[in-house]
Amino acid sequence: MAPMTTPGEEMHALVERLYPLCRSITGDGVRATLDIVGKYIPLQVHEVPTGTRVLDWTVPQEWNIRDAYVADASGRRVVDFAASSLHVLGYSVPVAATLPLSELRGHLHTLPEHPTWVPYRTSYYTPEWGFCLAQETLDALPDGDYEVRIDSTLADGHLTYAEHVVPGEVADEVIVSCHVCHPSLANDNLAGVAVAVHLAQELAERTPYHTYRFVFAPGTIGAITWLARNAERIDRVKHGLVLACAGDRGRLTYKRSRRGDAEIDRVMRYVLETSGRPHHIKEFTPYGYDERQYCSPGFDLGVGSLSRTPYAGYPEYHTSADNPDFVSPEAMEDTLAVCREAFAVLDRDRRYLNLSPYGEPQLGRRGLYDSLGGRSDAKQAQMAMLWVLSLSDGEHGLLDVAERAGLPFDTVADAADALRAAGLIKA
Amino acid sequence: MAPMTTPGEEMHALVERLYPLCRSITGDGVRATLDIVGKYIPLQVHEVPTGTRVLDWTVPQEWNIRDAYVADASGRRVVDFAASSLHVLGYSVPVAATLPLSELRGHLHTLPEHPTWVPYRTSYYTPEWGFCLAQETLDALPDGDYEVRIDSTLADGHLTYAEHVVPGEVADEVIVSCHVCHPSLANDNLAGVAVAVHLAQELAERTPYHTYRFVFAPGTIGAITWLARNAERIDRVKHGLVLACAGDRGRLTYKRSRRGDAEIDRVMRYVLETSGRPHHIKEFTPYGYDERQYCSPGFDLGVGSLSRTPYAGYPEYHTSADNPDFVSPEAMEDTLAVCREAFAVLDRDRRYLNLSPYGEPQLGRRGLYDSLGGRSDAKQAQMAMLWVLSLSDGEHGLLDVAERAGLPFDTVADAADALRAAGLIKA
Amino acid sequence: MAPMTTPGEEMHALVERLYPLCRSITGDGVRATLDIVGKYIPLQVHEVPTGTRVLDWTVPQEWNIRDAYVADASGRRVVDFAASSLHVLGYSVPVAATLPLSELRGHLHTLPEHPTWVPYRTSYYTPEWGFCLAQETLDALPDGDYEVRIDSTLADGHLTYAEHVVPGEVADEVIVSCHVCHPSLANDNLAGVAVAVHLAQELAERTPYHTYRFVFAPGTIGAITWLARNAERIDRVKHGLVLACAGDRGRLTYKRSRRGDAEIDRVMRYVLETSGRPHHIKEFTPYGYDERQYCSPGFDLGVGSLSRTPYAGYPEYHTSADNPDFVSPEAMEDTLAVCREAFAVLDRDRRYLNLSPYGEPQLGRRGLYDSLGGRSDAKQAQMAMLWVLSLSDGEHGLLDVAERAGLPFDTVADAADALRAAGLIKA
Repeated sequence: MAPMTTPGEEMHALVERLYPLCRSITGDGVRATLDIVGKYIPLQVHEVPTGTRVLDWTVPQEWNIRDAYVADASGRRVVDFAASSLHVLGYSVPVAATLPLSELRGHLHTLPEHPTWVPYRTSYYTPEWGFCLAQETLDALPDGDYEVRIDSTLADGHLTYAEHVVPGEVADEVIVSCHVCHPSLANDNLAGVAVAVHLAQELAERTPYHTYRFVFAPGTIGAITWLARNAERIDRVKHGLVLACAGDRGRLTYKRSRRGDAEIDRVMRYVLETSGRPHHIKEFTPYGYDERQYCSPGFDLGVGSLSRTPYAGYPEYHTSADNPDFVSPEAMEDTLAVCREAFAVLDRDRRYLNLSPYGEPQLGRRGLYDSLGGRSDAKQAQMAMLWVLSLSDGEHGLLDVAERAGLPFDTVADAADALRAAGLIKA
Repeated sequence: MAPMTTPGEEMHALVERLYPLCRSITGDGVRATLDIVGKYIPLQVHEVPTGTRVLDWTVPQEWNIRDAYVADASGRRVVDFAASSLHVLGYSVPVAATLPLSELRGHLHTLPEHPTWVPYRTSYYTPEWGFCLAQETLDALPDGDYEVRIDSTLADGHLTYAEHVVPGEVADEVIVSCHVCHPSLANDNLAGVAVAVHLAQELAERTPYHTYRFVFAPGTIGAITWLARNAERIDRVKHGLVLACAGDRGRLTYKRSRRGDAEIDRVMRYVLETSGRPHHIKEFTPYGYDERQYCSPGFDLGVGSLSRTPYAGYPEYHTSADNPDFVSPEAMEDTLAVCREAFAVLDRDRRYLNLSPYGEPQLGRRGLYDSLGGRSDAKQAQMAMLWVLSLSDGEHGLLDVAERAGLPFDTVADAADALRAAGLIKA
Repeated sequence: MAPMTTPGEEMHALVERLYPLCRSITGDGVRATLDIVGKYIPLQVHEVPTGTRVLDWTVPQEWNIRDAYVADASGRRVVDFAASSLHVLGYSVPVAATLPLSELRGHLHTLPEHPTWVPYRTSYYTPEWGFCLAQETLDALPDGDYEVRIDSTLADGHLTYAEHVVPGEVADEVIVSCHVCHPSLANDNLAGVAVAVHLAQELAERTPYHTYRFVFAPGTIGAITWLARNAERIDRVKHGLVLACAGDRGRLTYKRSRRGDAEIDRVMRYVLETSGRPHHIKEFTPYGYDERQYCSPGFDLGVGSLSRTPYAGYPEYHTSADNPDFVSPEAMEDTLAVCREAFAVLDRDRRYLNLSPYGEPQLGRRGLYDSLGGRSDAKQAQMAMLWVLSLSDGEHGLLDVAERAGLPFDTVADAADALRAAGLIKA
């Protein structure tokens, strides 16, 4: 019998499928990426014209590239875009020229400390062209003339991003945001995309409490564009998570929102701490991924960021070594599981009001003790009911109750359900 | 010469006197208990009819019991209520039958892990009958038929509780509450009753600042009944203490009110910490004694609970081993002393307003330094005056001053008295 | 070539020059002191008549002294005011008498534990006369009659204090206050006076942001007089520092204002901690120097106190051993440097408002990244800009930003300047 495919293997297969595409902040690489994602979950794709004002920024010209290479005197391609999208400086202007190596060097980027790796470089807002290659490739090039050719276009076009919505019981939204602008880099951020796709599929299996909105957009300018186009409706976004570097083998890292104590911050801390996973929780800094934009002081959304090893925290970061082997099915499954657990808490966390707040209500009369009769955790369930009654004063939510009582969140939420069914509390 | 009786010995004598009575949440055992207490301090006894709605509850039928036993075929009583009130399941419905041991077993309660002890069990709200006995007694019973008889009545009647008030300078009240529903158990709660009685006697020796109200009521339903009948006047209750398990030889335990930082919480912490007594301070939980009711979110009174070893924290808890030997005169005296010290702070703690808040007032001109001349603690007394002046801004009480200044509370309160007499501060 | 004089040496020279004068809370000693200080920085000298009501106090009679001695039977002066101003009890009433040693002893003050030192003693508000001398001098006196003479006057006159103002860009004031009432004691407080004089000179080299007001006044009654005469305008005082015991070789001590978290408290903590200097930070107490008055609850100014070893914390305190050798040029320079650093932070700390708070503004478009091109700390400077933008929400000042970002204050303030110049933030 053929073994079943695990979710981790499915996510890894998606990473491998997306890996070769040359993504950037605009252009057909993003479109091709979203086409593939769209085969897993339906997407609403948005195209925003070059020149559109978005907050303090302007949508730039669209960049597309067909071919790029450095060829030696014999015509052999010593650096070839066809081999890896990393070989060309992102947003390179077109060039077709023959140059001596001495002159060409100013346009070549390497990583001397990792001589076999190709770096990832871009120049979005300063017109420039260049190639990225391994230091050892550069070292092997003899002096002489080289033909360089970048068959790219920078022209008015569009910036592309996509959304996928899982409707919930309420219109209040949780956003899950992934940047899709990096070319052949697996952990940054194809792993994040793959985890998001699986989360969306799982959430659709039942109607969640919150509405979940997945945003697949280029970093910075894409998030800014999304915010500009959704500014009027931003109040519906109650919580959010930026997924990035979600697949390496390191421990989990949660970076708090700018608020520091937003509910997503408290939920992520609770899930990470109570699950026993090795993890690290970082305070907000205004540098990183698109949480920078969501948490800018005008919006100040409750959006944190979940990674494994954070950006720039591993040597493979922004190099050709961030390839599909660098991310593991198990790590992506673990990231997925943490998101699942966190959203489960987020969806059940509610503030209730005790409708019988003077003295304890008589639980026995309502059969609330009997209902626990046969359960091994009857004592915990009873304590959870007493705690929910005690703290349901409009000031505390169920996560507060769980933390103060030292009881599992689900036990507390189950107790709240029983008390609500008995008419003793209301949301 | 005969030695003087110590307060500890007096309290212990009261415990021994009350010990044999069969108390429950209603009935003549409570009345007999209150009759005895009433010989020490005058009591106002309240009788609340069966069926009276009290908050979410209803006063149950009154239970009385005259006799109960299990007798073997020879007529010998192998379990006999006359020997200990614990032998009958509290609130047992009447029964008169002859049963084989195999059938009787379902009504027998033992403590296999303590084979010589008799457990304490009740069934207040589910009609049931049963006996409690030592495991070794049970083990020695031969098979065969046994006569069981419980001569009890469950009938409309009353729930009984009592109050004793020590009038103070102000109508603001401190309540001291003890449950009186447990039968022959010494630490839980006859020791609490005995300490309360002595506190009441001591407080009456002079007019205290606060009015002190002592409530002797059955647990849960009694406190709920008291709250229901006093809901309109509950605002006068500023502080309170539930006394329970007040006589065992363990260290003192203070359980904070639900508020966590009510003045009683701060005073108890101050007294326990500065007195150097071994002690433990617990956060509030909605489980325990009648602080559960006083601290329910609708009332949310500043009521904490003082015990030595907390309920269920000692193996003798709710067994025949919680007998008068289990409580010690010295432990009860120590509990009494802590209450005395705490109430002394509570009664002197006041917020003052500095009437000369611009610059330091000239203390020398008013003779406030001279008055300290001969005292060994003159420097401390002077510092206390400066601290009281500095912090008497309407935001801080004298306990705040003592804690921030690191000075004894009484030194600070004496300084405040001197400053008030000099017209420099007012309450 | 003659070596340059260091600021420390200049301050030490001023201490030596002021040292011999007999200062008290009133009188010509204070005037002579202010005359000398006035040669370094222009002073506005205030004379407040005896009998003037100042807050809760009254300006006392003015005390002046010309001569005082104890002479033996041969006419030899065994204790002589001409040798040290400490020899006479401050505010001694005049006396001219011949007394046996046995009777004289009641007017003699010594330090038995330091037999070669002369103590400093006063009796401002109780009419008294006396002499201070070394224990070993007293021990050497034979029995017999002694002539005592104190040629002092206590008469209606004035209390004298002085101010020096360095005008700033804004009228908001920082006060620097030194007591000038102690006679021949170097650390307490001539070192403080010398540091203040140099601070004033340095601040005048450029227009500071705040207006700096230096107050040279007798302790307690002088500060109270200043407060009484400035009560109407006290709101302009935003920050302040009392300088005392500023020249001994011990580590620095900062005593917080009564508020505890006033901006001066936060700035001093920041400067002391980030500078790596050994130091100690003390909570406010209502005892010490004139911070007592500035921080009295009616005023409650943000005034802390900077010392090296605090008052009464060294054996030489209030004795003849607190002489110019006890203070060091290096220590005074270090105290001066800390004040300079703290005032630099105070003068640049500002709350800004991000004018482009929705998403990050595009810094590159405004050349704000380019401007960092050649700098070795370009990354830090960029992070500082992002942090200032993120926290400029009206709730946080630049010191908050520096502390939260973990960046040097000046880097943050420079970033704020660049952002303000680019129109991205406003004060």
